[in-house]
Amino acid sequence: MRWLRFTKDQHTSFGVVHDEGRVQKALGDPFNGYQLEPLFYDIADVKIELPFQAKTFYCAGMNYSSHIKAVAKRTGTKPELPKQADIGYRANNALIATGEEVVMPADSKVIQYEGELVVVIGRKAKNLSPSEALSCVLGYTIGNDVSERNWQKSDRTFWRSKNTDTFKPMGPWIETEFDLSKAKTRVRVNGELSTEFDTGEMIFDVPTFISKMTQYLTLWPGDMIWMGTDGSSPNLKHNDQVDVEITGLGVLSNRFVMAN
Amino acid sequence: MRWLRFTKDQHTSFGVVHDEGRVQKALGDPFNGYQLEPLFYDIADVKIELPFQAKTFYCAGMNYSSHIKAVAKRTGTKPELPKQADIGYRANNALIATGEEVVMPADSKVIQYEGELVVVIGRKAKNLSPSEALSCVLGYTIGNDVSERNWQKSDRTFWRSKNTDTFKPMGPWIETEFDLSKAKTRVRVNGELSTEFDTGEMIFDVPTFISKMTQYLTLWPGDMIWMGTDGSSPNLKHNDQVDVEITGLGVLSNRFVMAN
Repeated sequence: MRWLRFTKDQHTSFGVVHDEGRVQKALGDPFNGYQLEPLFYDIADVKIELPFQAKTFYCAGMNYSSHIKAVAKRTGTKPELPKQADIGYRANNALIATGEEVVMPADSKVIQYEGELVVVIGRKAKNLSPSEALSCVLGYTIGNDVSERNWQKSDRTFWRSKNTDTFKPMGPWIETEFDLSKAKTRVRVNGELSTEFDTGEMIFDVPTFISKMTQYLTLWPGDMIWMGTDGSSPNLKHNDQVDVEITGLGVLSNRFVMAN
Repeated sequence: MRWLRFTKDQHTSFGVVHDEGRVQKALGDPFNGYQLEPLFYDIADVKIELPFQAKTFYCAGMNYSSHIKAVAKRTGTKPELPKQADIGYRANNALIATGEEVVMPADSKVIQYEGELVVVIGRKAKNLSPSEALSCVLGYTIGNDVSERNWQKSDRTFWRSKNTDTFKPMGPWIETEFDLSKAKTRVRVNGELSTEFDTGEMIFDVPTFISKMTQYLTLWPGDMIWMGTDGSSPNLKHNDQVDVEITGLGVLSNRFVMAN
């Protein structure tokens, strides 16, 4: 099932996507319960919103080996794989929906994409074993962990390198049925394939993160975990169109523009 | 004006605290507008809740010089003052109200307090100059940035050292009138004064942080900025009572207990 959040006639609601490019409006939401209404819209005729209102924004950071090697090369350090599943954080101010513009600040220099799988938490969870871990997951979507590499080096935290307004595109929808074992992440810049990797080739997988995290903290409906990226990105420039596709999850599309 | 959030008869609402230890119930909230009702309660007769529902949880980290020297001593490194106001993050899952218990996990070893000033954002803000910065502030409260020092050293991020459930006591209320220039932060353990410092002696002050942050990100009502701590803390043990007082803001009181 695909859950789209959309605005039509100044009203924002959830709906279920049908294969024919149509969305059926729902009363309620996929977290707390819903009822489908006999109202259908063409997706082309609605404004696609962020797929849900996010609560705590977790991210796995270094979780694919090629990306860690690329980072080490860029920073002139030795590649070091993480020894344990330590989760990190991003901030909700930076989130934008598919179709919206990533605005690169006038003083930014080196902006890159990071295509990521996003895990959407659907129910309250504490102390889950790895085999129970996926029971708290509502579904999956796509994220682009846009990063400014100079600030990532110069600042003491990732606050503006990762969390500048518009730096976290997410969407297009939540997919509740997803086969991670067969999924590929493909990122295209202006239509040309730029990065491709097996989405499931993580250093620590989703159950490992959820199990470890819930030993210490409570996950809540609307929390999300961005699972990290693989490979590297070219430096993006004004008017570049970046499409992140994950098999079965659709495409997250955003244009990058320089601030005036 | 002091805004308390409280539960009485299974109903949670905001109210205004009067000097006589009474709270007057409000309809609405201090962020979006309110109306006072002719209903008064003794504060002793209500359950004090978190003073507001927090959105993005910003924290200043290293922002007082004695604390930085104490950290350097503990970790065997050279004390280094931050060169710019780089904001960090904490997570909302860890928040608890005054009067609630900090639960120290069974595998935790070195738990310490950090008494902090908390800035509560009241209105949407972008691109504020330092002189305009305080215009987006609704008021102030107190935070205790509880930390497990072993995990802070061993983990790649601060996720469990700082954000384990119950590690972020905050309260008791939001004070809209506050004279930072005269404020002292005093932390007591089991009634005995343990740490005392001038709350305003920050390396980067509140207007500097807000102005720098809003060059890159939008602040929203309900966002908060924890301003960092000074000095150091003893290692806390089962049943320790920790009271953080800031002049004019009241006292944040929490008992620390070991998990079963």
